[in-house]
Amino acid sequence: MEERVLIEVDLDRREAVRRPLPEAWRRLGGRALTSAVVAEQVDPRCHPLSAANLLVIAPGLLAGTGLSSANRLSAGAKSPLTGGIKESNCGGVAGYKLGRLGVAAVLLRGRLRGGPLPAGLRIGREGVSFLDLSELAGRPIYESAERLLARYGRKAGLILAGPAGEIRLAAACLSVNDPEGEPCRNLGRGGLGAVLGAKGLKAIVIEEEGGQVPVADREKLKEAIRRFAACLREHPVTGEKFARYGTCMTLLTVNGLGGLPTRNFREGVFEGAEAIGAESLYQTIRGRGGRWAHGCMPGCVIRCSNKYVDPRGEPVVGSLDYETICLLGSNLGLSDLDQIASLNRLCNEVGVDTMETGVALGVLAEGGLFRFGDYGAARGLIEEIGRGSPLGRLLGSGAAACARAYGVERVPVVKGQGMAAYDPRAIKGMGLTYAFSPMGADHTAGNAITLSVDHLDPEAQLEPVRRLHARTMVLDWLGLCLFTGRVSLAQPRLIEEMLEAVRGWKVGFEELEALGWQMLGREREFNRRAGFAEAADRLPGFMLAEKLPPGGPVFDIREEVQARFYDPWKPAGGN
Amino acid sequence: MEERVLIEVDLDRREAVRRPLPEAWRRLGGRALTSAVVAEQVDPRCHPLSAANLLVIAPGLLAGTGLSSANRLSAGAKSPLTGGIKESNCGGVAGYKLGRLGVAAVLLRGRLRGGPLPAGLRIGREGVSFLDLSELAGRPIYESAERLLARYGRKAGLILAGPAGEIRLAAACLSVNDPEGEPCRNLGRGGLGAVLGAKGLKAIVIEEEGGQVPVADREKLKEAIRRFAACLREHPVTGEKFARYGTCMTLLTVNGLGGLPTRNFREGVFEGAEAIGAESLYQTIRGRGGRWAHGCMPGCVIRCSNKYVDPRGEPVVGSLDYETICLLGSNLGLSDLDQIASLNRLCNEVGVDTMETGVALGVLAEGGLFRFGDYGAARGLIEEIGRGSPLGRLLGSGAAACARAYGVERVPVVKGQGMAAYDPRAIKGMGLTYAFSPMGADHTAGNAITLSVDHLDPEAQLEPVRRLHARTMVLDWLGLCLFTGRVSLAQPRLIEEMLEAVRGWKVGFEELEALGWQMLGREREFNRRAGFAEAADRLPGFMLAEKLPPGGPVFDIREEVQARFYDPWKPAGGN
Repeated sequence: MEERVLIEVDLDRREAVRRPLPEAWRRLGGRALTSAVVAEQVDPRCHPLSAANLLVIAPGLLAGTGLSSANRLSAGAKSPLTGGIKESNCGGVAGYKLGRLGVAAVLLRGRLRGGPLPAGLRIGREGVSFLDLSELAGRPIYESAERLLARYGRKAGLILAGPAGEIRLAAACLSVNDPEGEPCRNLGRGGLGAVLGAKGLKAIVIEEEGGQVPVADREKLKEAIRRFAACLREHPVTGEKFARYGTCMTLLTVNGLGGLPTRNFREGVFEGAEAIGAESLYQTIRGRGGRWAHGCMPGCVIRCSNKYVDPRGEPVVGSLDYETICLLGSNLGLSDLDQIASLNRLCNEVGVDTMETGVALGVLAEGGLFRFGDYGAARGLIEEIGRGSPLGRLLGSGAAACARAYGVERVPVVKGQGMAAYDPRAIKGMGLTYAFSPMGADHTAGNAITLSVDHLDPEAQLEPVRRLHARTMVLDWLGLCLFTGRVSLAQPRLIEEMLEAVRGWKVGFEELEALGWQMLGREREFNRRAGFAEAADRLPGFMLAEKLPPGGPVFDIREEVQARFYDPWKPAGGN
Repeated sequence: MEERVLIEVDLDRREAVRRPLPEAWRRLGGRALTSAVVAEQVDPRCHPLSAANLLVIAPGLLAGTGLSSANRLSAGAKSPLTGGIKESNCGGVAGYKLGRLGVAAVLLRGRLRGGPLPAGLRIGREGVSFLDLSELAGRPIYESAERLLARYGRKAGLILAGPAGEIRLAAACLSVNDPEGEPCRNLGRGGLGAVLGAKGLKAIVIEEEGGQVPVADREKLKEAIRRFAACLREHPVTGEKFARYGTCMTLLTVNGLGGLPTRNFREGVFEGAEAIGAESLYQTIRGRGGRWAHGCMPGCVIRCSNKYVDPRGEPVVGSLDYETICLLGSNLGLSDLDQIASLNRLCNEVGVDTMETGVALGVLAEGGLFRFGDYGAARGLIEEIGRGSPLGRLLGSGAAACARAYGVERVPVVKGQGMAAYDPRAIKGMGLTYAFSPMGADHTAGNAITLSVDHLDPEAQLEPVRRLHARTMVLDWLGLCLFTGRVSLAQPRLIEEMLEAVRGWKVGFEELEALGWQMLGREREFNRRAGFAEAADRLPGFMLAEKLPPGGPVFDIREEVQARFYDPWKPAGGN
């Protein structure tokens, strides 16, 4: 089997080399690879915007193979937002393209010191070249993507930063295009757009057509593709519910559990929940001729994505999703999907994480800068980011920075990153995930809402959530979408088959889990060397004391229980 | 001997009680007491602006006794700026008054929940009462102080917050009046003004006249007062040089060593150093009829303070001092003392730390918001703080926040606090102090510029600086001004005599040093429990790599040497 390659870009010297993937990294991909590289090669005490930081871009181990939902793209670095290790991943076409090129990772070292800025990188079968993208300086994401696709072909994969990344704001994301070319799949969390911007780059363009992805056994792969797709189609959630309702299907459930962040996490039930819930979203999109059952990645059979359109049927934003609907919606007291979709589009244009921006706006509203429910004010504030005004820069610096400037003490962040759309007082397992993920308050690191537990029971969370973190690492390593979990984690033999077919690696799932747990430990060790002590692995104090209306829960997982989160891994059967 | 008392104020209940000082704290004062209370009673994970934080105000153990230079006042809390433990101390009359009242400490718990805000506290021999200071809401420091002195008597001691503290900004200071009533002595560092503001208080008024301070042995005290004053007068620095040149006497020395922070720590020698140096300051003040040889505390024989006046002889600011002259001067490319004095006055009015503000402005200039050397722009930015505008709030949030918003990677802070006016690449012992003080980049915790070592030699710093930290803790505990160090630390028998006379405590200086070291460990332990790992005790990466012009030093104290900073204390003779 042809081995995958590494593309190392020395920006100081404006040079790029393609070389074989080092032996130690052969079995890695996605988050496992980005975190290994960052942990081994980045000084944990460097400034995230300095030339000493690396930006590592790695598709999952199964990317480009035609397996459904297996083309997630990871990016990693020391985070400008948290100051710790960061991995963020997304769908779209870039991971698929890199996978087909046999590229295991792109490492960006140093920074461009001269020449026209910002620059770009073009990666294809012929090699790597630099692009002069100075004409795109300061341009919003959609216009930039359109011009790049017009120039390099509509099938190119893009990874690009917006104005926020160019001015190096800590909430800046990286955007990736979907199969229709809309740059709406985001490596959202942790400020990776600022890392690209600090390196003097605006975009990476990936060209690939017609070639073959290097795999171990094509026949086995065909069989694995078929079987996995069939299993996904058979399951009621991955085969049907996701296609109709998308990620938003959770909204009324979370609201029913009393854990839907509302007005800066002051309440857990939102009076406008129905209006922004899954059925409302589906009917709105359908009634206006938008798209649902849309796949963000080539060949995905789950197809949770949508294309939200305005009342005239004109496109607004590609995939209006749960976290955004809540954090730019209920968390700001907004219950109009059109307004939320507009804010989403605006964040995408400017190039900031919708989640961090939603949490930050909630904090600013709490600080008195504007009233909850004031759509125009929220919109104006996001526009300020694009202008680079002082207020825009503050908002684009994230929730913790906004809280500091506006004297707000209820700050829903861990390690400086804003919480996702589950109040951990009502969804307690998610509280463990926020607290203990080396990424800060990230839900994807252990998406506890998917667990079959009593979410309000403080004693029921620890072991399932620990196991979920290890398993999530495995999914992020392989580039498998989390939404396959109901199938892939329930029938891990499927994962074993895929790995054998694609990489020729015969490995049991339990061993993968244990390796995943080890990798989590390496991420956490990076954070320790960056200055985080154990106490940084906890929720903000107000969530332990302030009762969440209407039910009144607090986050009450006992300290002794929490202290066991990083206890050594014990292999165990069952879920 | 009459025991000192504790004033505990429960702001939630609007109650204050006077009670005997608990046994465990009987020998503590100043920083030793504030840090003991914070370490024991504040949840290290609480939000600094929440009701769970305490503000502890404690004069040194010798305050109010008539001993020269022994009336420093400490305040402590969990810091809104660093997120770690904080103690800041200053001169002025408040420490003296509290000492004479026999008050060991004032503990402010909780926060005011209703009634007119902001409120005040009035402390006197008759007890403690609450004041309605709502008419001073948002008023600048000088006007507020003037109105308080007019109402409560010109001899009252004041501790007050300015507009920045009221809006809870992380760089907000507390101000204390000097013997003439000018509120220009600042508990500057770490945002303690925001903690007072978050509690709903604007000011503490201390009334005391004619009573007697509780001491162990009046005869011995008289002798100690006489002897200490004589020793201070005999020494060429404490007896003469400080009175003429004040703190600024170091400026040309530091410039000569190539360590004067210039234009955001880009250079170590400032072309305008002569113009802002000690002789220039002295001649300017003298030629215009200002004051020098001014004592900030009652009875101080060192008298390092000054009253800077404008060309017409009108008062500008009380004591234009070294750190401010550099951080609002050379660090911003400004070499005009009148301009620097005006910026100092403006910071004092708004109620922000001149040091943090200077470092933050340097970062903003580096980020391109204004040009180094542009006095008008710097002035305008400080005025924004008083207006509470977004940009003002950002500036008032400190250097690290400004760096984040403006994408600046050269950020001269440790634990989120801006460095003092010594570049640690040239004054390497100061680098250890910045890195290892639990307070963040604080010079006073171990003012290494006073050491008789080769400041550029990376191997010569560790032991002297460690010892200096322990000794500084002793001075801060007793309320002795650091500037007595050349006498008090050189003849520690003087300290032993004072303690015996004032508190009846017979203790050897070596034991005090060892206890001081223990207290430092407790402070650091608080930080660990707040989330700081060992790696947080280091300088920012750019100072290890970027050569400081013109000499080109980097901070090169070896990691193995640094790692020994908190090794156990070994008592040792000599200096």
